[in-house]
Amino acid sequence: MKLYDYLPSGNSYKVRLLMSYIGVEYVHVPIDIHKGDTQDINFRAKNPVGQIPLLELRDGRFIAESNAILYFLAEGTPYFPMNAFDQAKCLQWMFFEQYKHEPSIAVARFICNYDKDVRADELPKLRVKGRQALEIMDAHLSKNPWFVGGSPTIADIALYAYTHVASEGGFDIVAYPNVSAWLERMADHPKHILITDNPNL
Amino acid sequence: MKLYDYLPSGNSYKVRLLMSYIGVEYVHVPIDIHKGDTQDINFRAKNPVGQIPLLELRDGRFIAESNAILYFLAEGTPYFPMNAFDQAKCLQWMFFEQYKHEPSIAVARFICNYDKDVRADELPKLRVKGRQALEIMDAHLSKNPWFVGGSPTIADIALYAYTHVASEGGFDIVAYPNVSAWLERMADHPKHILITDNPNL
Repeated sequence: MKLYDYLPSGNSYKVRLLMSYIGVEYVHVPIDIHKGDTQDINFRAKNPVGQIPLLELRDGRFIAESNAILYFLAEGTPYFPMNAFDQAKCLQWMFFEQYKHEPSIAVARFICNYDKDVRADELPKLRVKGRQALEIMDAHLSKNPWFVGGSPTIADIALYAYTHVASEGGFDIVAYPNVSAWLERMADHPKHILITDNPNL
Repeated sequence: MKLYDYLPSGNSYKVRLLMSYIGVEYVHVPIDIHKGDTQDINFRAKNPVGQIPLLELRDGRFIAESNAILYFLAEGTPYFPMNAFDQAKCLQWMFFEQYKHEPSIAVARFICNYDKDVRADELPKLRVKGRQALEIMDAHLSKNPWFVGGSPTIADIALYAYTHVASEGGFDIVAYPNVSAWLERMADHPKHILITDNPNL
């Protein structure tokens, strides 16, 4: 398999983190989103949406959307539950991540890191929305060690990716004690890697 | 099962449409999003995110997020593929729907229908993004009758919900001939219902 990937991307990190957990080897294809690589005609032929991460299977077929890639790789591993209800709950949290969490917390981080001169006026609204997402997570984690069931799943991986770097977008994670404790549990996983780690280099 | 639902909501319609396809009976619980029902403390106890649709199972457990509900209901039916690759492709399009399509096309519709006096200035940007989503769909449908495989799946249902009412948000669907033809194929399904139809009333 090949992973088209930009190392600081949380969406890409999700896939690398799961690959590390389950011990999948892959060819790493670096894509520089700042140089327009994802808008390039050759890349768009692979993924018309023009986004990383993108997974290329051995037979040349592609899967896009970080959380769909997680789902594909996690089936049959301990990181996707066995029963139908818990499977749906995993997806519930992953859709929450892409609808409520990533568009505020990841976008605020992106603006702070790369685009503060032009888009700083977007930050106040993004921070209100991001804090709402963190509050929902904190309330859930006040009663549950993981997002679904008794061990980490792809729901935790999906939510970990941008939560653990939320401070880069101006979020104060200390204000969410249950989220903070969960971040530590995630980082304690024996196969943990850092966001810019690429175990296949 | 109980479906907490607002009839004009495309996200809720997805669930009702699949329920009609597969012949599931349910109790319909009307929720008026304009009266603040989803922000009510009793509703938030059921779904902390404060959104419809929300599915309540017979045992009292809840599943939120329209596309997670679709996934839960479709497993084992013809509307979710059997093989792992096609399953992931379904989810790929469903995450595309929630990240690229719904936040532009559904939000533009909402503003035009209910909030034009206050939020009209958001429309130009939403329409640029919405047209990008429609172009990606049109290109895919120029080579494929359905989003995944040879028959409609929950990916089609997820994308149909707000595409077929995109004109309410100011989108010219005629400009996307392959999308238009696909909308007609969807409406030809023998168990088709309209967006505000509630087969259980």
